[in-house]
Amino acid sequence: MALHPDRLFPVEPEARAIARRLFESVADLKIISPHGHTEPAWYAEDQAFPDPAALFITPDHYATRMLYSQGVRLEDLGVRRRDGKGAAVEGRAIWRLFASHFHLFAGTPTRLWLEHSLETIFGITERLQPANADALYDRIAEAIATPALRPRALYDKFGIEVIATTDGALDDLAHHDAIRRSGWHGRVVPTYRPDAVVDPEARGFLENVEKLLAMTGEPATWTGYLNAHRARRAFFKAHGATATDHGHPSAHTENLSAADAARLFDEALSGTAGPAQAYAFRGQMLTELARMSTEDGLVMQIHPGSYRNHNPSLFADFGPDKGADIPKATDYVHDLKPLLDAVGNDASLTVILFTLDETAYSRELAPLAGHYPALRLGPAWWFFDSPEGMRRFRETTTETCGFYNTVGFNDDTRAYLSIPARHDMARRVDCAYLARLVADHRLDEEEAHDLARELAYGLAKRGYRL
Amino acid sequence: MALHPDRLFPVEPEARAIARRLFESVADLKIISPHGHTEPAWYAEDQAFPDPAALFITPDHYATRMLYSQGVRLEDLGVRRRDGKGAAVEGRAIWRLFASHFHLFAGTPTRLWLEHSLETIFGITERLQPANADALYDRIAEAIATPALRPRALYDKFGIEVIATTDGALDDLAHHDAIRRSGWHGRVVPTYRPDAVVDPEARGFLENVEKLLAMTGEPATWTGYLNAHRARRAFFKAHGATATDHGHPSAHTENLSAADAARLFDEALSGTAGPAQAYAFRGQMLTELARMSTEDGLVMQIHPGSYRNHNPSLFADFGPDKGADIPKATDYVHDLKPLLDAVGNDASLTVILFTLDETAYSRELAPLAGHYPALRLGPAWWFFDSPEGMRRFRETTTETCGFYNTVGFNDDTRAYLSIPARHDMARRVDCAYLARLVADHRLDEEEAHDLARELAYGLAKRGYRL
Amino acid sequence: MALHPDRLFPVEPEARAIARRLFESVADLKIISPHGHTEPAWYAEDQAFPDPAALFITPDHYATRMLYSQGVRLEDLGVRRRDGKGAAVEGRAIWRLFASHFHLFAGTPTRLWLEHSLETIFGITERLQPANADALYDRIAEAIATPALRPRALYDKFGIEVIATTDGALDDLAHHDAIRRSGWHGRVVPTYRPDAVVDPEARGFLENVEKLLAMTGEPATWTGYLNAHRARRAFFKAHGATATDHGHPSAHTENLSAADAARLFDEALSGTAGPAQAYAFRGQMLTELARMSTEDGLVMQIHPGSYRNHNPSLFADFGPDKGADIPKATDYVHDLKPLLDAVGNDASLTVILFTLDETAYSRELAPLAGHYPALRLGPAWWFFDSPEGMRRFRETTTETCGFYNTVGFNDDTRAYLSIPARHDMARRVDCAYLARLVADHRLDEEEAHDLARELAYGLAKRGYRL
Repeated sequence: MALHPDRLFPVEPEARAIARRLFESVADLKIISPHGHTEPAWYAEDQAFPDPAALFITPDHYATRMLYSQGVRLEDLGVRRRDGKGAAVEGRAIWRLFASHFHLFAGTPTRLWLEHSLETIFGITERLQPANADALYDRIAEAIATPALRPRALYDKFGIEVIATTDGALDDLAHHDAIRRSGWHGRVVPTYRPDAVVDPEARGFLENVEKLLAMTGEPATWTGYLNAHRARRAFFKAHGATATDHGHPSAHTENLSAADAARLFDEALSGTAGPAQAYAFRGQMLTELARMSTEDGLVMQIHPGSYRNHNPSLFADFGPDKGADIPKATDYVHDLKPLLDAVGNDASLTVILFTLDETAYSRELAPLAGHYPALRLGPAWWFFDSPEGMRRFRETTTETCGFYNTVGFNDDTRAYLSIPARHDMARRVDCAYLARLVADHRLDEEEAHDLARELAYGLAKRGYRL
Repeated sequence: MALHPDRLFPVEPEARAIARRLFESVADLKIISPHGHTEPAWYAEDQAFPDPAALFITPDHYATRMLYSQGVRLEDLGVRRRDGKGAAVEGRAIWRLFASHFHLFAGTPTRLWLEHSLETIFGITERLQPANADALYDRIAEAIATPALRPRALYDKFGIEVIATTDGALDDLAHHDAIRRSGWHGRVVPTYRPDAVVDPEARGFLENVEKLLAMTGEPATWTGYLNAHRARRAFFKAHGATATDHGHPSAHTENLSAADAARLFDEALSGTAGPAQAYAFRGQMLTELARMSTEDGLVMQIHPGSYRNHNPSLFADFGPDKGADIPKATDYVHDLKPLLDAVGNDASLTVILFTLDETAYSRELAPLAGHYPALRLGPAWWFFDSPEGMRRFRETTTETCGFYNTVGFNDDTRAYLSIPARHDMARRVDCAYLARLVADHRLDEEEAHDLARELAYGLAKRGYRL
Repeated sequence: MALHPDRLFPVEPEARAIARRLFESVADLKIISPHGHTEPAWYAEDQAFPDPAALFITPDHYATRMLYSQGVRLEDLGVRRRDGKGAAVEGRAIWRLFASHFHLFAGTPTRLWLEHSLETIFGITERLQPANADALYDRIAEAIATPALRPRALYDKFGIEVIATTDGALDDLAHHDAIRRSGWHGRVVPTYRPDAVVDPEARGFLENVEKLLAMTGEPATWTGYLNAHRARRAFFKAHGATATDHGHPSAHTENLSAADAARLFDEALSGTAGPAQAYAFRGQMLTELARMSTEDGLVMQIHPGSYRNHNPSLFADFGPDKGADIPKATDYVHDLKPLLDAVGNDASLTVILFTLDETAYSRELAPLAGHYPALRLGPAWWFFDSPEGMRRFRETTTETCGFYNTVGFNDDTRAYLSIPARHDMARRVDCAYLARLVADHRLDEEEAHDLARELAYGLAKRGYRL
């Protein structure tokens, strides 16, 4: 049951041997984690994590969605209803329920991440099942109470060199301040994620913009609003940020005149903007934010194409981020054109594109990134952060835009304990891909070694200017 | 030339050995055939099949379309014109023509199915070619005249445990009645396919609905029409049906108010419904039929995305189902939302989705099935019922929705003799996929054995409530 | 560093051995190059090629786009600005700049083509890098000054049997004339590419049509215009052409009445046609040109789905074909229907379809080509003219339309020295694909040998009627 040293490598012995050699040279490289969702409070306060279910199950929508799809109620997995109804569920009961459904995860990355964490952090090499659920629960609960498994200790144990969090535009970054003031050697940097003050359809948009303007002392004008963004970006940058992040329903951008943009802003702020205006405003803001990136050097990340909260009754009961966001077809070639017309030829800018629509890899994203100096491709994302997903990403992009128009791996996770597992998976899959290119003589092994290092470490570090 | 025991397995010896072991444990499992198009009359009357051409070529649009694409006339393959013109063609002449074009099928599943049938049923291990066409024709003709190759004997020889037919809503199920009354041990169940009374654009829609209402004694109102469906479903269920089937141009659904739906029904029945109304009505009916499934427990199958009768002159001459149905892009994430809003969270409901647009696997179908309790994914369908098609289905869905949100294999065929060949292919390809996961240490071989059994037998049996 | 004899073959020894045997039997077959962009002047004048940079870098948009995407200026690669500003750059400086960025091409076909050319034509087996850039430059420069590397000598050295060029409808084919009159044994045939007189949105459309009518003595009427095409096609055919080529933004076709088409033509010619009229006119012309092909037997090629000149500032500075054409989603099933309704059942017609949208392979193109007698599939095109691109083409089309509804390989290149490299790659990848089918017992090795020969030679020769 123990983790096999050759996992995820090609089965053919010659290619496997190459993959082994490549992986050996990158397995112990420091982790660059330039995009993710861990809590800055963890590093600031360095408290022990709560019980195993709260650590591994309840907050992980990969885990809860699979059980939900097979008829398990979210309440029974510890997910709290918005109306506060329903009794709290014991961690142990959640863990048992999970154990009795663990076979559902066969063939999924969630299974591989969990088993990697259990073995490397807790020394557990048994497959989770009803019979051993209680024993494993106790063992994990005991371990996470110890100082060796507190966030800062794990940061060192995991070999993290730098980790980025994702923070709203209105965030005071107090935890990031506290981390810095504490004198701890870890490097935790914020990321500027302004969706809530950029999307007129976001919950509380008007209040959010009001706060933004108040925080920065700017007037409620288009110019004031843009300057407020500039001020907050500078604030984030002063706290170590090197990047911004933008999760939009589509990749749509606009390149309006200042007058038209100002008019749109006034509509948005008056609360009269309908869906078409909101769509246009979000699009215009991507271009404005890209222009700001040419000024302040922050790397821009665009994550489009998720139909958020597809399940309205689940959303009503439990709120967002419960596994009901569904990918949709995304058109980059037309949608990004206004932004690219404005800033696409600026080689000092870096815009990193992600997708949930794999058809865009070979048809649009690799051709775009293989041409525009400002564009790079982010790694296989979300549902595609998986062995087959990563393989398809390389197979459908490399031939057109090469390796150097990509930016290495990022774990994009709120599951802190899974971070080493995810980087391990990405490094293995990339080494397996490179090994196949070496084995059929498309690359020399020597350059494959250089590339393996770039994919595991160099590209992320340089791509995100860390 | 004989069938190789390792066909469709991985070539790498280690993975091949695993695939062999997995396949050995499922090769002889009984066949569950929960969706198909064999004729209930075959089982009821148990007559010998006609000549080899009528058995293997003329009714098989996979076979005739390939020859047609290379300039062979359908008339020469025995396909009769609607206007009755043209002389009947002798089976032997058709067979010879087919033999002289058999090289066209290299690399296709049709070739693999045919050769499997020839060897396992007729003991023929030579490749079909002009030189042996007559001899093979005689050998097959002789064999199918014997009692051992009648439908009921083949049912046993093939190891079928249960087989579903597909039957119009107006069908009297007389053959199913006859089968039951005959005391034969075979289990042949009908499937409720109401497209002809659901689609206002279907040929004869108004007459069909009239018949439906007459059969059930319901009035020509929206409520009466829905009750007529309920009555027919109950009739099918009483004859053994466990499922319904819906072949729609798109996955579009609606969730209208009862008043709006009633108005739409009245338009459809008055013959004034245009394409937009027909589109909406079909969409509304999918939701209504899903609601009925929550009442009566029938599993619902949705087969969308075929552009039927793409070739109008061929349709005029020969009618439907002559190989001129072409897949088109299909949007599940928006189209299914109204139905899912209505019943998607009902874990007692099973809706099985199929696609002819492979891009939907990883982008939409696996994410949807990995979340909604009511959804399951049907196997790779029609043009994708093939080794590469099945492999891509597993590779692009498993990581997101696992194995247990799929429902095993179904052969979907009217080619009775190919049924064992198709299940053999599916079992081999699934074992090959599992073997690769075992070989690169994503699964243990022990659990792969359990999964192989589920994919070959258990998932179909439970998924279709058989 | 030298080219490995097993490059691009399966790694698994059994499959590799089969691939070797298959490749041996096709490696030395003559090259049929039925679609490409070499200059007829080369063969007519037989002059030495200029310096290495002008040969390998400046005109190759695959090469320049990759460097541009990483911040290199096109000016520094020798690409001249339209306004004539900027000093000419020395070939040696361009070569050095290229050498210092050569690592960007790891994993791309450009790298494999270049290394194949360097070794087989110049005997260079070192990897290009800054340290050896000058030495290799000198070596290449010296060699291309010799008679052995002039266009006609290379034609023989490369083993070309016939090569097609691509020529505007207004071209006088003087170079083709000169080639024929010279008595040289090489076969260089033109291809009729009328986009500039067919697309109302093409630069200079009105002048182009005026010239077309003047050349053919036809009046400025719809009938005159169609007859002018007929006359030019006859002229091309008399110069050896066997095919036409059409590069349209989409696959859209129309099948209008003669009166409506004539009205559209009048609008186009009056300069009052907007985008919708231009779109309709282009679509109508595809159908008209297909009809002409049924008359004169010229094979019709349709290359849709490129968003040309996506980067307007680059286009303003440098003009078209500088690496800024980006693929877009393409719908064949609806777009081609009017053309297919008109002529799709004509088995004497050959229409060859290409795509930049790989999702169409399995969903639309293979099902269409596997049905309509007039349709064939062109090989993996442009960004997909690569090992993975070719593999995906076979894996997603063969099972539905077989091998015989495809037309072999074409190199589609203006990079003359890369022609053997490209055919070598295509033959290897096809043999690798066939070897896998043999190794897992989907094909016999004997028929794989026949198929390898068809894919490398026979299908292109027959498909293009050469």
